[in-house]
Amino acid sequence: MSRIITLTTDFGYQDPFVGIMKGVVCAIDPEATIVDLTHGVAPQDVTGGALALAATVDFFPAGTIHAAVVDPGVGGERRPILVETDRACYIGPDNGLLSLAAGRQRLIRVVHLSNPDYHLSPTSTTFHGRDIFAPAAAHVSAGVPPEKLGETVEAFETLNIPAPETPDGGRIAGEVIYVDGFGNLTTNIRGEDLERFDPESIAVRIGDREIRGISANYASAGTGNYLALVNSWGLLEVSRCNGSAQAGLGAGTGTRVLLAPPSSTGSPPPVRVGGKVSRE
Amino acid sequence: MSRIITLTTDFGYQDPFVGIMKGVVCAIDPEATIVDLTHGVAPQDVTGGALALAATVDFFPAGTIHAAVVDPGVGGERRPILVETDRACYIGPDNGLLSLAAGRQRLIRVVHLSNPDYHLSPTSTTFHGRDIFAPAAAHVSAGVPPEKLGETVEAFETLNIPAPETPDGGRIAGEVIYVDGFGNLTTNIRGEDLERFDPESIAVRIGDREIRGISANYASAGTGNYLALVNSWGLLEVSRCNGSAQAGLGAGTGTRVLLAPPSSTGSPPPVRVGGKVSRE
Amino acid sequence: MSRIITLTTDFGYQDPFVGIMKGVVCAIDPEATIVDLTHGVAPQDVTGGALALAATVDFFPAGTIHAAVVDPGVGGERRPILVETDRACYIGPDNGLLSLAAGRQRLIRVVHLSNPDYHLSPTSTTFHGRDIFAPAAAHVSAGVPPEKLGETVEAFETLNIPAPETPDGGRIAGEVIYVDGFGNLTTNIRGEDLERFDPESIAVRIGDREIRGISANYASAGTGNYLALVNSWGLLEVSRCNGSAQAGLGAGTGTRVLLAPPSSTGSPPPVRVGGKVSRE
Repeated sequence: MSRIITLTTDFGYQDPFVGIMKGVVCAIDPEATIVDLTHGVAPQDVTGGALALAATVDFFPAGTIHAAVVDPGVGGERRPILVETDRACYIGPDNGLLSLAAGRQRLIRVVHLSNPDYHLSPTSTTFHGRDIFAPAAAHVSAGVPPEKLGETVEAFETLNIPAPETPDGGRIAGEVIYVDGFGNLTTNIRGEDLERFDPESIAVRIGDREIRGISANYASAGTGNYLALVNSWGLLEVSRCNGSAQAGLGAGTGTRVLLAPPSSTGSPPPVRVGGKVSRE
Repeated sequence: MSRIITLTTDFGYQDPFVGIMKGVVCAIDPEATIVDLTHGVAPQDVTGGALALAATVDFFPAGTIHAAVVDPGVGGERRPILVETDRACYIGPDNGLLSLAAGRQRLIRVVHLSNPDYHLSPTSTTFHGRDIFAPAAAHVSAGVPPEKLGETVEAFETLNIPAPETPDGGRIAGEVIYVDGFGNLTTNIRGEDLERFDPESIAVRIGDREIRGISANYASAGTGNYLALVNSWGLLEVSRCNGSAQAGLGAGTGTRVLLAPPSSTGSPPPVRVGGKVSRE
Repeated sequence: MSRIITLTTDFGYQDPFVGIMKGVVCAIDPEATIVDLTHGVAPQDVTGGALALAATVDFFPAGTIHAAVVDPGVGGERRPILVETDRACYIGPDNGLLSLAAGRQRLIRVVHLSNPDYHLSPTSTTFHGRDIFAPAAAHVSAGVPPEKLGETVEAFETLNIPAPETPDGGRIAGEVIYVDGFGNLTTNIRGEDLERFDPESIAVRIGDREIRGISANYASAGTGNYLALVNSWGLLEVSRCNGSAQAGLGAGTGTRVLLAPPSSTGSPPPVRVGGKVSRE
């Protein structure tokens, strides 16, 4: 009956907050298997947390419970929710954090976690991970039907990851949406988007740098060189062999990336650097 | 029979030291459930580790074994101990680390972990986490009575967390005792201490900044603004909405925080910044 | 049947990559016990990862499966392998990462993980931790014989940790091979190598600093002082009491350390600082 509960937060690794959530889970359902996904989401980076969840959940077995807390609005008007799909249960704040993962699956129900019988008491206004989300995950793991945790609601907040644009001449203008700990720059351009280019001569422009061709892996570019490849999430990524593209290029989330066939790059349009991922 | 063993250390996340302790536990009691609380306690910060443990242990089920290692005196005169209470077993160095958590529960016994039959052999002078504390936790989990691990002793070292002062005129002078990874500043002033003030007009002074009123949550202050609230540990906390109060105020452990009714803040006394938490 | 699977990577704690590997393991063998050793190996530091594994594996029970990923050559010519010894299974890239741990045990077989039936499909060129190593570990845990995962091969890549030199006059010239998160400097000089010196008068030179005598533990030197001791890995370590020897001495991997009897240090030869650990 007991299930896997994954934890994803921006709590970091310095404080006992994650440990407190684990204690709450263990006390309610000692048989649950707790799996840390990451607690290194940048503070208050709801989009980063949502992307991390979305990249991960498909690899877990059906029935897994994913509790996630990146929650700058804790204690305010945003609702604590549970999203049940045909694959998994997602538990966290209704600020878009759950939406990229849950939104790709068949929705069964959304529950506003309003039933105080399943909260810790007293319930703080600053730590719903402890008082609402961990208890909800543990109760579901122990067999409580999700619909008992509160009233069913119609919808949940969704995030807007910007789609790449195709300004003219077959070019694709995308941007960096995720920077990993190696400094690799994941863009919003999908591997499929590259299919109409010649992979050996395509030009990838980022800032004032141009990378020619799509590499098969990190090592093939040679130490210190920049490269572009389709990464394990199926997205175009700009990397530096044995180095950090983030540091070397001064790039980050929102940095523009332009794909173009080689003939069009003789006088490329200026590339704006430093735009932002818009959020809903 | 096997139990939950939590691990709390200042070993960080770079090295294999925590993994080594887990190996020792698995080899002695493969059925134990190991739960990481945090390994991000600042190096040698016994008080920080003690506060983290104290904030966490009540949420775990009765019978949990908490092993903790923040141990600058390893291999010297400080004793390795086990503290058994009516709720839990605490295992670690006798330097105060266990005292804030165990001290609030009913004491059953304190054991000096002196029995070499339950140490790894040879026993190093630099890594008692591996050689004494992990084995002790695993043996207790596997069913060895704590009193077999060494001789019973009378007492354990305790830490002195300073109490707030009430200098005059109904004011309360406290200080920051814990800074979390978000840069939130937890003080030694309890939520109950605020009850005689008007929560809307109370003045919270830290450094040269004055915050008016107690907020209900982080978000209500608006991005970038400082706020004060009663946090999930029941203590007054100074925070910055979507930012770091630590960085913004240049504050840290020991920074003074003054609470005053609004009328008394016309000419406030100078606030000393940078004092230190005294330790026993 | 199910077994312990340990994970060691340079993926850090910011991203979901480790969580993804755990999902893959849970989906293939829900009964496996996953234990994080460390994910804080410095990016692409194969030697650091190999030393971490070698320091840890002997403490785990026989039959443990150790999956490790420090893999700058992922997707290129280096092979994904499994090394089975009389004590454990090691799974990772064939770049030396597994060699220090596995090399000290009795070798049973080396398998090139070439059987696509045991890979995730499609198999990326950038994340073999997800697509090859986690599945291999989970399948072995679930009972698949290692030899079914690919063809048996003769050998695996090994790392060369330099041995200390004995230039003249009974001196020993070693170097720092590992720096831990406290800033302690582990050298390649073994505790046994010290036996012919007087432990109270021996001179340990590092950079322009000389430490006299071998300490029993960290605390005995007094706060801020440098000391040398034989650490929990049985190796000579240079440390600073309640501080960081790395920061204080500007030292790192490859920094030379010279051991000499006291009489020979009147006019010591110049000590080169900043050499590198050679790798095979």
